[in-house]
Amino acid sequence: MDEFELIHRYFSAGSAKRADVVLGVGDDAALLEVPEDQELAVTTDSLLPGVHFPADLDPAAVGQRSLAANLSDLAAMGAEPAWVLLALTLPEADENWLEAFSRGFHALAKQHQVALVGGNIARGPFNITVTAQGFVPKGQALRRRGAKAGDKVFVTGSPGDAAAGLKLIQSGSKDMADPCLRRFAYPEPRVNAGMALRGLASACIDISDGLLADLGHILEMSEAGATVLTAKLPLSKRLLQLHGMDAALCLTLMGGDDYELLFTAAPERQQLIEEELKALECPVACIGSVDAEPGLRCLETSGHGLKMTAAGYKHF
Amino acid sequence: MDEFELIHRYFSAGSAKRADVVLGVGDDAALLEVPEDQELAVTTDSLLPGVHFPADLDPAAVGQRSLAANLSDLAAMGAEPAWVLLALTLPEADENWLEAFSRGFHALAKQHQVALVGGNIARGPFNITVTAQGFVPKGQALRRRGAKAGDKVFVTGSPGDAAAGLKLIQSGSKDMADPCLRRFAYPEPRVNAGMALRGLASACIDISDGLLADLGHILEMSEAGATVLTAKLPLSKRLLQLHGMDAALCLTLMGGDDYELLFTAAPERQQLIEEELKALECPVACIGSVDAEPGLRCLETSGHGLKMTAAGYKHF
Repeated sequence: MDEFELIHRYFSAGSAKRADVVLGVGDDAALLEVPEDQELAVTTDSLLPGVHFPADLDPAAVGQRSLAANLSDLAAMGAEPAWVLLALTLPEADENWLEAFSRGFHALAKQHQVALVGGNIARGPFNITVTAQGFVPKGQALRRRGAKAGDKVFVTGSPGDAAAGLKLIQSGSKDMADPCLRRFAYPEPRVNAGMALRGLASACIDISDGLLADLGHILEMSEAGATVLTAKLPLSKRLLQLHGMDAALCLTLMGGDDYELLFTAAPERQQLIEEELKALECPVACIGSVDAEPGLRCLETSGHGLKMTAAGYKHF
Repeated sequence: MDEFELIHRYFSAGSAKRADVVLGVGDDAALLEVPEDQELAVTTDSLLPGVHFPADLDPAAVGQRSLAANLSDLAAMGAEPAWVLLALTLPEADENWLEAFSRGFHALAKQHQVALVGGNIARGPFNITVTAQGFVPKGQALRRRGAKAGDKVFVTGSPGDAAAGLKLIQSGSKDMADPCLRRFAYPEPRVNAGMALRGLASACIDISDGLLADLGHILEMSEAGATVLTAKLPLSKRLLQLHGMDAALCLTLMGGDDYELLFTAAPERQQLIEEELKALECPVACIGSVDAEPGLRCLETSGHGLKMTAAGYKHF
């Protein structure tokens, strides 16, 4: 089966159909219509086995993760996902792998009305690169810059679960009923929450490098500092059960791959934010505040500072 | 140097500045403004060493090629390039390589007023995946579908030169003054020619798989056949000098990587097309015609059919 047949069999259909796709897969480029009054949000991410996921991870999970990482970036901008391109480099055309991968990919695409509009398949060392595009009304995108002293710091879901899930997978577990393992294998990007935060959040990022590292990105762009209260961190029951308090805190602050949203907002917005996200069944916690003083501080209930570095995953 | 510093040093600046880039590199996604009345054309391509270029090719040439392949796809749609994303996976952060690669990439980007608006850098087996976007007025894009019986078949430049250039490189030559070698190493996508062909060409594709293979794609989408007259093929002097007539014909018909445009048009458009492309200093040749009879025929001057298959490069 050559690349054209592979594309036809596994990728030409399967994702969502959209009226704004004038021309999809099969020509030199796709042709797309961006609605008036909207900006286009565009992001790209590469996933590699052994770096971003275990090489033996269920290919359906790899398919979902590779799209989720990109939709999560759009969510962090408050953008509504629309279109995606997939560049797949594979050592061999393993049809079982392709069937499961494309199933996982398309399932998440359909859930968010995302159309696959183009891509590339080549033979070579494993590499999955996804480019995702979405819309956001002009001037309403959430950015990393914008946090102000006095703002509250919020996080969705229970970060740390994905890192705990990865540890389970690495220890041989394949129990998809485990909430931590599932969170790593099948992350759910917070697309609807991101859109709901337009006009409410002052700055936003998704947690891919780790809570502290990604909060550091917001602070750097916003030229501000922050204090995180560890007692306010939303540790999941399963995370505490697996690792106990100290390690759970560490995983929550440093673990990556959660694809939760981390954002700041003025204190008077807190109630509205909690109501909006509750309506979307998206858990949210206020975990600290933005300070004028530069730097990132973690305080235990006792008021003692935790000794931690804000290092996220570095590739080089 | 970590990935953030690499991005900052080699990729944050360097490409063109554009007023329609609301937010560029450095957030979760770029924010872009598509002009009203324009469709967005989007394409992605991966380049791998040993597959798409020799592993020891000058990294500046790799940079130019990786962007050229994508701009050529936009050219084949008649689109005006605007923005590009670069996902780079590298075995190591070799700064000499990155400096030369980014120089080649940015030089071509500036030439076509293309802004680099996002990307990804990861450590792993070598992979360069570029996603390019451009504009085309609504309904005016050139497609593979649209060739009609009676149309003429045209090609820009002198395809086959890139394949001959690759052979020179593989034999150890590094003479960038050689027009064939240069054509492979530093392909010039036919962006302005593609835009000029809006409203003139009935179907268009860029030659990446080979002239016959890519003409086959047009014919398949257009449900038509074609006859190519080998005597009309625009063989370059250097190609003939290097390989003689028979091999030159073969390279011209089967060689890939030329990034020339192959298109069809009604006979009454021929004069206008030749004038428009001459004004752009883009050579063009009429090499045959579209037939109602399915299939692709190559005729020598004698009228004898050549025995050739239309197989392009296949990845699996």
